[in-house]
Amino acid sequence: MNADQSLSEVFNETTFKVTGHGSRDIQVLKLALEQIDGSLDSDMYGKGKVIEDFQDKIATYLGKENAVFFPSGTMAQQIALRIWCDQQGIKRVAYHPLCHLEIHEEDGLKELHHIEPVLLADKNRLIQLDDVVNMKEDIACLLLELPQREIGGQLPDYAEIEAISAFCRDKGIKLHLDGARLFEIVPYYQKTAAEICGLFDSVYVSFYKGIGGIAGAVLAGEAAFINESKIWKRRHGGDLISLYPYILTSDYYFEQRVDKMGQYYEEAKELAAYFNRCHGMSTIPLEPVSNMFHVHFELPKEKLEPLLKNLYIETGVGLTSYIRDNSKGGSYCEISVGDRYIGIPKKDLDKAFQTLERYLNQI
Amino acid sequence: MNADQSLSEVFNETTFKVTGHGSRDIQVLKLALEQIDGSLDSDMYGKGKVIEDFQDKIATYLGKENAVFFPSGTMAQQIALRIWCDQQGIKRVAYHPLCHLEIHEEDGLKELHHIEPVLLADKNRLIQLDDVVNMKEDIACLLLELPQREIGGQLPDYAEIEAISAFCRDKGIKLHLDGARLFEIVPYYQKTAAEICGLFDSVYVSFYKGIGGIAGAVLAGEAAFINESKIWKRRHGGDLISLYPYILTSDYYFEQRVDKMGQYYEEAKELAAYFNRCHGMSTIPLEPVSNMFHVHFELPKEKLEPLLKNLYIETGVGLTSYIRDNSKGGSYCEISVGDRYIGIPKKDLDKAFQTLERYLNQI
Repeated sequence: MNADQSLSEVFNETTFKVTGHGSRDIQVLKLALEQIDGSLDSDMYGKGKVIEDFQDKIATYLGKENAVFFPSGTMAQQIALRIWCDQQGIKRVAYHPLCHLEIHEEDGLKELHHIEPVLLADKNRLIQLDDVVNMKEDIACLLLELPQREIGGQLPDYAEIEAISAFCRDKGIKLHLDGARLFEIVPYYQKTAAEICGLFDSVYVSFYKGIGGIAGAVLAGEAAFINESKIWKRRHGGDLISLYPYILTSDYYFEQRVDKMGQYYEEAKELAAYFNRCHGMSTIPLEPVSNMFHVHFELPKEKLEPLLKNLYIETGVGLTSYIRDNSKGGSYCEISVGDRYIGIPKKDLDKAFQTLERYLNQI
Repeated sequence: MNADQSLSEVFNETTFKVTGHGSRDIQVLKLALEQIDGSLDSDMYGKGKVIEDFQDKIATYLGKENAVFFPSGTMAQQIALRIWCDQQGIKRVAYHPLCHLEIHEEDGLKELHHIEPVLLADKNRLIQLDDVVNMKEDIACLLLELPQREIGGQLPDYAEIEAISAFCRDKGIKLHLDGARLFEIVPYYQKTAAEICGLFDSVYVSFYKGIGGIAGAVLAGEAAFINESKIWKRRHGGDLISLYPYILTSDYYFEQRVDKMGQYYEEAKELAAYFNRCHGMSTIPLEPVSNMFHVHFELPKEKLEPLLKNLYIETGVGLTSYIRDNSKGGSYCEISVGDRYIGIPKKDLDKAFQTLERYLNQI
């Protein structure tokens, strides 16, 4: 590796990477298939043992009556909101300004479902009970994302969620959980996933974030809701003849990693402390509440990138594959701790951050 | 196997099956992955070598400027029609009464895109130039399905398609090809896929019919059309982080089978002749024009099924895994010839149809 390569290229060639489970390569699929007998039948348009068993297993884990496997969370969540809007006769929902549906889906919710969002809270903070109580518009559904990914994976106090849930039930507002990273927050709340999901009417979880599968999502809720979601799944073009490549890998990596979320969480706190001890760096949250956090740097991307490349080359430790400028003249990146972190010798990690601090002091 | 089992169960246990490529099991995926190096990078949200190379390859095969891989044809076709409707400012398209969008998609086109279809022709026959010329409504797009699957995979004369294409171009009507089974009809027309697609503005092809992949589709057309389809793919929830399990298998089985379509076609003609020589049976088309055809039986399902089960048990040859009643007091099934047919010894096939004829004469 050399300093003419991109940050991502230099990162990819480091010996030790602090983020993620490993490369997103074909081996992820090959490994999961190794132990599976080739004669196992494919699922067929949502039917068959492969898909039904996994749906039942995740429904039980989430404490919900039924669940359905979707190719993507984008599809699952638009459909959940559409069902609640149709049922309530109100084409309006509320969510955070940095909700996935608002910033990453090319306005699918508006263009396909003609549902208008009410944006709650300032984009730099979490939704609070007051935001919900003081909302002027009638809404069919409130979506809460736990953790709030785009602001570093922050979480409200559990009592705040309970209060929001009680308010919504009282007002007849459906409460939907964007649980893309639900597995990752169970250790912080010290609640079961089923307890957390019990506060919500519908829940989506993803299998390629902390779980590290290839793709795929599950939507869970009461039987009538899930049955209707299957009709919309077909309308969206998501009722594939075979979803088993995603289901088998989701199941395989769920089994491998769902019980490691506590380990990732502890490691994230340790790693965040390393960053926070460095000059001109701080994490959001200051102490992580899951396996993820954001690091904000006083230096802009232009100045930070060459420094990081040199660091990776000198120490063999890669901290992040990318840097983005933030709105305050500095820059930031997102860190997600996974299987790789535990394999990094402490002395290498210490040396990497000492070297980084030395670089920063030379500026 | 025994006569108490379902027709499908008895069929599955036969030594020789006249339809299909083989079981839809996990081995289909494992086999395709065997030769692929685990270090190959995943595609990422529509980018990367795995997806881009395959899209380019199929665009070239279809003679179109660009192509995009979709998880399903349902998604690809709704999006194609939506783009043409938006461009023309007309929320109306025309297609056959037994079009996939009309009967298999839970009205996704209407519910998600608010596009109204004009149903052309009687459901038992193909769309002809006259149907298009005499249409009273303004439409943005005409969809032709080649072959017309639900009526046995019939095809119009090539000159008829050319005339419809010329008429549509003259009138400013976009022409879309539902080419779910396009690969399968190339031998009949004695044209290249690119020549056939040259008559259309947009084309969809599937990789799990004659090609025998796991799932997946490609939409092809001009660059501006394809770029817009990628935005809609994200809106639909089809822009998965990784589609490679479908792409790699589509490519693997495309290479294996696209040049065998002529063989399947000849075999389908041979097999249809066997059925047509039997008492009270006839195929649609009488002489197949691809690897597929329908068999219509004078006997209703209730009387035919026990007879077929006995046939499978006595001869070890399975003709079909299911029978459906038709509207004329008889019954029917669909036959698609694939890799299995060539492995059946002629003497076993002869014996099966002789035995079937003997059963029929005993009624």
